[in-house]
Amino acid sequence: MTHSLESLAERLQRLEDLEAIRSIIAQYGPLADSGDGEALSQLWTDNGEYEVVGFAAAQGRGAIAGLIEGANHRSLMCQGCAHLLGPVAIELDGDLASARGHSVIFRHLGDGQFEAHRVAANCWTLERRAEGWRVIHRANALLDGQETARMLLTPRVAPHRP
Amino acid sequence: MTHSLESLAERLQRLEDLEAIRSIIAQYGPLADSGDGEALSQLWTDNGEYEVVGFAAAQGRGAIAGLIEGANHRSLMCQGCAHLLGPVAIELDGDLASARGHSVIFRHLGDGQFEAHRVAANCWTLERRAEGWRVIHRANALLDGQETARMLLTPRVAPHRP
Amino acid sequence: MTHSLESLAERLQRLEDLEAIRSIIAQYGPLADSGDGEALSQLWTDNGEYEVVGFAAAQGRGAIAGLIEGANHRSLMCQGCAHLLGPVAIELDGDLASARGHSVIFRHLGDGQFEAHRVAANCWTLERRAEGWRVIHRANALLDGQETARMLLTPRVAPHRP
Repeated sequence: MTHSLESLAERLQRLEDLEAIRSIIAQYGPLADSGDGEALSQLWTDNGEYEVVGFAAAQGRGAIAGLIEGANHRSLMCQGCAHLLGPVAIELDGDLASARGHSVIFRHLGDGQFEAHRVAANCWTLERRAEGWRVIHRANALLDGQETARMLLTPRVAPHRP
Repeated sequence: MTHSLESLAERLQRLEDLEAIRSIIAQYGPLADSGDGEALSQLWTDNGEYEVVGFAAAQGRGAIAGLIEGANHRSLMCQGCAHLLGPVAIELDGDLASARGHSVIFRHLGDGQFEAHRVAANCWTLERRAEGWRVIHRANALLDGQETARMLLTPRVAPHRP
Repeated sequence: MTHSLESLAERLQRLEDLEAIRSIIAQYGPLADSGDGEALSQLWTDNGEYEVVGFAAAQGRGAIAGLIEGANHRSLMCQGCAHLLGPVAIELDGDLASARGHSVIFRHLGDGQFEAHRVAANCWTLERRAEGWRVIHRANALLDGQETARMLLTPRVAPHRP
């Protein structure tokens, strides 16, 4: 096979895109559990959204930072919590991408006992911006048997602006 | 150091292989929990195998899709479940690869309570095909103290056709 | 955009570094649960450290292998256990890197019942050596509400020798 600088650069760009998307999502859990709402909100675009189905929806970086800085999350942090994510299945479509995967919040119950407090499905929609890939929408729904949660995990829907 | 198009292309190919293998495995959980047996079975080769030690063994895409479309899995989905995987340790050997890692099935018990229902070891064997990397064998065993499960996690065995 | 061999090689190197770091960390869980202390200790540098805050600190490969070969870990393995890690948020800084993320130890209680036995925060510090990236320090702290654990997850501290 003959290679050109252009063809190699294109293949490299695809890997860099996947790496950037995975990195944005991998930062979520550590930032949530260190309580850094400001840095966490920078994973989203200016007017990005975080929708926790049946619980809360936040639009814009201020509102997203607010979820982390609010009383609920602070109380969880003080008890002890871990926002663990699984690997994400990424679909790239030019400057848009979707990433689907699980998240589990472990909660410390005291005396070194933990429970799986929330087990959820996630569909992240990301967009390439001048400053890099950012989240434009994250939908999260409890995997408690509801169809909505299962739908977030199906790849039949191509990346699109929600 | 001097670089040639050929040496860069070779390094790029290795990264693309790792990315493809990770991507195949990252799709498993979301496809299992969205109930899409047909799409899930496409992660395997035509006559690929999925062996759940002491529980079931499925050979071929039809049989693998059947695990997801069968009554056991459908009942679990209706209650609420999450097939969470950990990161995989990948060994590449030309057109064969192995990937070792953990999987956890969380089950919804009702009222937003979850349990870690199965905690297992996995050894995936993958092969490069014309259409890309596909699973030829996945072995899964419960980490309940049995030696079989621990053996799946040891890298002392090079990638090979099971 | 014009590309040069040099610029492509540099971009490739960055991806290879991230891949190598992720791979080192992805090997930890499978090696711990297969009980291979010797191979596990090779993920660290000669005099690398593994600090489990409030529990144990091991310096050097012999001591790190000893954690896996000691009575505590062997007893856990015989009961059944899984060292599951989450994705890591990596910061590269030349020949140093940090990686932050969660780890969960599941313990088999008998009869196929499991508990989340330890849920912890981790900050890995890695260094590029002639033989590749290796861990020079891993700090692990239980996410039981203590500030120490949350601090391990904050990216405000650049990669540095602990």
